[in-house]
Order: sequence, then C-alpha cells, then structure tokens
Amino acid sequence: MSELGERAAALDAADELAGSRKQFVIEDDVVYLDGNSLGALPAHVPGRVEDVVRRQWGELRIRSWEESGWWTAPERIGDRIAPLVGAAAGQIVVGDSTSVNVFKAVVAAARMAGEDRDEILVDATTFPTDGYIAESAARMTGRTLRPVTPADVPGVLSDRTAAVLLNHVDYRTGRLHDLPSLTAAVHAAGALAVWDLCHSAGALPVGLDEHGVDLAVGCTYKYLNGGPGSPAYLYVRHAHQDRFDSPLPGWNSHADPFGMRADFEPAPGALRGRVGTPDILSMLALEAALEVWDGVSIEAVRAKSLALTDFFLECVAAYVGEGRVESLTPPAHERRGSQVALRCPDAGDVMKRLIERGVVGDFRHPDVLRFGFTPLYVGFADVERAGRVLGEVLG
Amino acid sequence: MSELGERAAALDAADELAGSRKQFVIEDDVVYLDGNSLGALPAHVPGRVEDVVRRQWGELRIRSWEESGWWTAPERIGDRIAPLVGAAAGQIVVGDSTSVNVFKAVVAAARMAGEDRDEILVDATTFPTDGYIAESAARMTGRTLRPVTPADVPGVLSDRTAAVLLNHVDYRTGRLHDLPSLTAAVHAAGALAVWDLCHSAGALPVGLDEHGVDLAVGCTYKYLNGGPGSPAYLYVRHAHQDRFDSPLPGWNSHADPFGMRADFEPAPGALRGRVGTPDILSMLALEAALEVWDGVSIEAVRAKSLALTDFFLECVAAYVGEGRVESLTPPAHERRGSQVALRCPDAGDVMKRLIERGVVGDFRHPDVLRFGFTPLYVGFADVERAGRVLGEVLG
Repeated sequence: MSELGERAAALDAADELAGSRKQFVIEDDVVYLDGNSLGALPAHVPGRVEDVVRRQWGELRIRSWEESGWWTAPERIGDRIAPLVGAAAGQIVVGDSTSVNVFKAVVAAARMAGEDRDEILVDATTFPTDGYIAESAARMTGRTLRPVTPADVPGVLSDRTAAVLLNHVDYRTGRLHDLPSLTAAVHAAGALAVWDLCHSAGALPVGLDEHGVDLAVGCTYKYLNGGPGSPAYLYVRHAHQDRFDSPLPGWNSHADPFGMRADFEPAPGALRGRVGTPDILSMLALEAALEVWDGVSIEAVRAKSLALTDFFLECVAAYVGEGRVESLTPPAHERRGSQVALRCPDAGDVMKRLIERGVVGDFRHPDVLRFGFTPLYVGFADVERAGRVLGEVLG
Repeated sequence: MSELGERAAALDAADELAGSRKQFVIEDDVVYLDGNSLGALPAHVPGRVEDVVRRQWGELRIRSWEESGWWTAPERIGDRIAPLVGAAAGQIVVGDSTSVNVFKAVVAAARMAGEDRDEILVDATTFPTDGYIAESAARMTGRTLRPVTPADVPGVLSDRTAAVLLNHVDYRTGRLHDLPSLTAAVHAAGALAVWDLCHSAGALPVGLDEHGVDLAVGCTYKYLNGGPGSPAYLYVRHAHQDRFDSPLPGWNSHADPFGMRADFEPAPGALRGRVGTPDILSMLALEAALEVWDGVSIEAVRAKSLALTDFFLECVAAYVGEGRVESLTPPAHERRGSQVALRCPDAGDVMKRLIERGVVGDFRHPDVLRFGFTPLYVGFADVERAGRVLGEVLG
C-alpha cells in the first residue's frame, strides 16, 4: 500500500462519521463525488416512499392530509432542516423550487426595505438562476439589479440598497463567502441580506439565527440527500415574519386555508412562505432522508469535510503531474466549501474517463472538474483513489 | 334488488369504460367520490415509483438526468397531457404548483396585452388561490384586479381589459362555464383568456387549441390521478410562445441551461414555462399514472360522467326525503362538470357519517356535500349505493 493509501486507512479508522456510510446506497467500487449535484440515496427511503404511495395515497387517500400529516409537512420538515442551518424552529417552510423561493425572498426583502431603496445587489458569480430571478424580482418591484462580486459588496452598499442576494458557497469554484461579515455589512447599510444555501447546507455550519440573516433559501437534493428535484426551502427570520409580503400568496399561505375566503389574510409565521398544495411524494421522501442526520453534528461534518478536501488536494499534488490541473478552490479553510474545483483542459473528456473508472464527479463548462465531498458517505480511501485515478487518467 | 339497483347493474354491464377500474387500487367496499380532490392510485404506479427511487436515483444517480429522461420530463409529460385537453404537442410543460402557474400565466398575459390595458378580470367564484395570485399578478404588473362572476364577464370586458382568469368548472358547485363563448368574448375585446382546468381536465373535453385559449393551467392530482400534490401544468398557445415573458425565468427556461450564462435568453417554445429543477419523484409518478389514459377517449369519459351524475341526481331524488338537500349543480348537461354539490344542513357531520359507511365525498364550508365522479373507476352500482346511503344517513 502506498503511503497515501496507508494514511487514508488510518484516517478512515479514526473517522467518527464512518458509520454513516452504511445508511446510503453506494456500491463499494464507486467513489461518488457528485453529492453536491445529487445526494446519494439513503437506504431506508425506498421503503418509506412505498408506504407513502401504497398505504397513505392508495389506501387512506384524502384522509392522509390529516392522518398522515401531509398538510403540515412543509413546516414540519422545515423544522427538521432548521438545526442544520442554525435556525430555531418556526422559521423554515419546505416547498417549491429554489428559483421560486429566491423570487419570494428577494421580492419580500425589497418590499421590507421600503420604496426609497431602489437597488438590489446580486452576487455576479452566482448560480445563474439566482441572477435571472433577482432580475425579475427587481423589475417587478421597480428596482434596479446590480450584479457585483461578493468581495465588492461592502464597497457598493449604500442607502439605495434594498436587498442583497448572495451565495454562501459558489457552485463552480467551491469558494465559501463570509456570511457573518457580509451580513453585518448589509445591515450596516440598512438593507436586507438574502442567502442562497444550496451548496453549504448539510456541509458546514451556517448560523442563520446567530448571524442575523434576514431571509435564506436552499435546495435539499445536494448535501441533504432529498432526491432528484426534491423541494427547496425558505427561511424567514422570526422578526420579519409579520412583514413578509409574499409575491406568491397561494391558498396554503392563508390564515384560514379551508375557509375558502375571497379576501387574502396571510397566515402567521413561516407558513406565510407556503404557496400551493405541497408535493407530497417528494416531500416525504425528503423527510425520510433527513433521518440520516439524527445524532450527527454539523460541526463534525464540517471537520471531516475540510479533512477530506485537504487530503484530496494533497493526493492531487502527489498523483497528478505538475501543472496538469489548477485548483480554483481556496486553500484557506475559512474560504472553502465542501468541494474542490480543478481547472483542466479537456475537462469534459477527462470527467467521462473518470466516471468510466468509477470516480464520479461532474463537469462544469468550459473547463472545470468538480468534486463534491459528502462527509456522511465519502471516506478517505475514496479520496485517495479519486486522486490516484485522476493522475492515471491525466497520464 | 331495487329498481334503481337493477338499472345500475344494467348500466354497468353496458359501460365501455368499466374495465378501467381494475387499473386502480380501490377496495370493493368503498365508493370513492372524492377523485375531484385526490385521484385514486393507479395500481402500476408503486412499482414505477420504486424503480425511479431504487434504480434511477439509487444506482444511476446523476446519470439519470440524461439516461432516465429526467431532464426532459416536464415537456414530455406535458405532451402526454396535451391530447386530454385538446392541445397539440409542444405547448404544455409540467412543474410547480397550480398557484405558481397561475402567477406565470396571468403576469405573462398582462404583459402580452400591453401597457395601456390596465385591468385584469378574475372569476369571483373561483377557487380562492386564483384570486389571491391574480391580485398579486395585478399588483406586480401595475394593473387593477376586478372580480366578476363568469356570467358578468362579457358585460365588463372593455379596451381596458388585459386578461381574464376563469375556472372551467367551479370547484364548489360543479358548474361548467362556457369556455368557447367566453374565450371568444375576451378575444373580441382584444384581451387574453387564461383558463384554470383543475376541475375539468380528465373529466370532459376542453378543446384548448380549437377554442383559441391563450394560456391555461391545471393540477394533475384530481381526474389525472397523479398523486398528492403532483406537479401542475402550464399551456402556452403556440402563437404566443415567442412573446411569453415569464415572471419566473429560472435556469430551466434558459435557451442554454448548462451554459451557466449570466445573461438570460429564454428557451424557444413551451420550455419557457419551466422554472427550476423538476421534482422528479412526483413527476414520474404522474407520468406513470397517465398510462391509464392509453386507448381511452375523453369523449367516452364525458358521456359516462354525465350518465353518472344524472343517475346520482335520480338516486338522490328517489332515496333522499323531499327538501333534505338542494343541488347546487346545474341540471343542464352543458353547464355541469363531473361532480354534484348538495347543500345540506350539518353537511360536515353528514359527510363524516357517509365516510364511516364507505361513501367518500368531501365537505366544503359551510354547508356543501361534494361528490366527484371519476368515470375511469366509479360505476353505476357505486352511484346507487351512494344515493341510498345518503338517504339512510339523512333518515
């Protein structure tokens, strides 16, 4: 065994999260480093989905809205996600896509900021949907959208700024932005901070309550393993809930949804972020998937995540010829999410060959190899193998 | 056997759709008349969902976006719904909730109508979410919302009207509105017609293309049996697609979604109605559920639906004491959907007792018993039993 192989074995032996892997369906001959795109299947989810379909839908039918807890699923599952992102209960509802939740959050933030603040800032390096949706939110609330890099945000904030939409971790490079200090800067300017947690929730502590974040959104199919296209979530800070004025006031956000009243009276609390009938099959698959977090601390996950990405960078340095790849991921821990992005010529072709050899990451146009490290099911031997195979593929 | 019981047996024997019932999971001792709230489970759906979860997600993981057809599911399933609502292919995408699709449709319609048309009309008798969402769409496009009853629409239309949002079948009374003539009246005023098909699609012919409907939305968990909270759909007429300007331009509606470009360029065609990552578990359960329509004509469904509701009204007249209930559902076939709504004191309590005796309808505040008739799995003996049990419960 190589020295790195021995190191990996020792790290795995000491890994307090190593036992989590058996809760997931992953073949032993596969190194799955694409959990930042689609989390692996928790082994108990198929049985739970079958129960939802066969018994709850097939036998109980409409009774399940009450008896199987369908109606209250959005807020119940929100409360299950809450501790993972540092939120007290009663501030998160699950439902709709991330894009739709970005729209709710940015529009609501702009409205709370008041009419005289006419600019919305958006992370210019963000996953594109956030930019497109923020542009629509700006257009429909009479604001101007201004794309800026996160580093430039403090210098651009002014008394014209209504809201700022930022990504916690950049989807491409894996850069972790400084949520506490950026949120504080936004607040100092009198504006509201909206954070997109797609690439951080479930991989590192977020601290929404602690850092005073106003609104946040995130998906659940990456590090939360909710399944393909599983519903996203919306966080509305307690202090803002009474003023949260949704652009999508569906009947599920009404104070008396079954009253079928012609006039709209918003529900109290986080329920105000709901819209239409919740998508039960996907939502309850997510609820089941979240059970893998029972007894797991997000701090332990973060510690292992950093150890995994450190070790991967070390393996890449050892196995891959000098100058063949360039890391886009910040070396400093405080600026790194749970992925490593390597720039490489022919990245699309290289990723195909990696996948053929059982190392699954993904390719991001035009030249990025992206490797995501999910601490609940990726081990150090996986990491050593990924680095070694990458070295072999790059010859 | 009573005379009505004999009639029911004869009607069932002659029913060309009687064979469809075996495709659904319904116990023999249950009369399920709530398919207009949640359609029954098609028997082959659990196995298909299991394959999606265990193999497509669990084994293929991200490869399924291409290999299992996940990415193209919204438009593929839209094309499967299209013939049921009289639409040619390429005009429907599936995704999001009905409420979210109402928002897209009404905002886009107002934008297409032009700035000088400053009023949006909405069916005052509609399911409330449509009114709430239309109010938001009006507010965010600088229009005034004006609620009117469908009968009053022709008299209220003017050169100020931008768009009109109407329900095809009223959720409460089961009244079927005259889609062809109302659409023609809206067009004569130079406005756009948006129809909500939640309570008509799958129960009767809609004729979207034939009648020149501009935009339409609908849910899939009622007569289309897609499962609890299954994704809704959006129809955008071919002629309008190039001008369809979505308020929710997520990355899935981009011409080059994986280009991850900062500038938004809308996709051609119906894809423009997509928003975020599609919710695969629910969406593919719906796709499987739609197979029950193979070889079924919506005209045959309509003929049976009217025969069922006629027969139910006849049974109610025979079994229920004079004056105990009052039908809110229009007697004329051309004004009747696929449900019967009976006003009755203590309707909530009456419905509980019906359900205890195996006759499942639902209660709508304050005094309505609602019975939905799904021709694919409700037979005439069911109807006779429902009428008889109602008579017994009302003593």
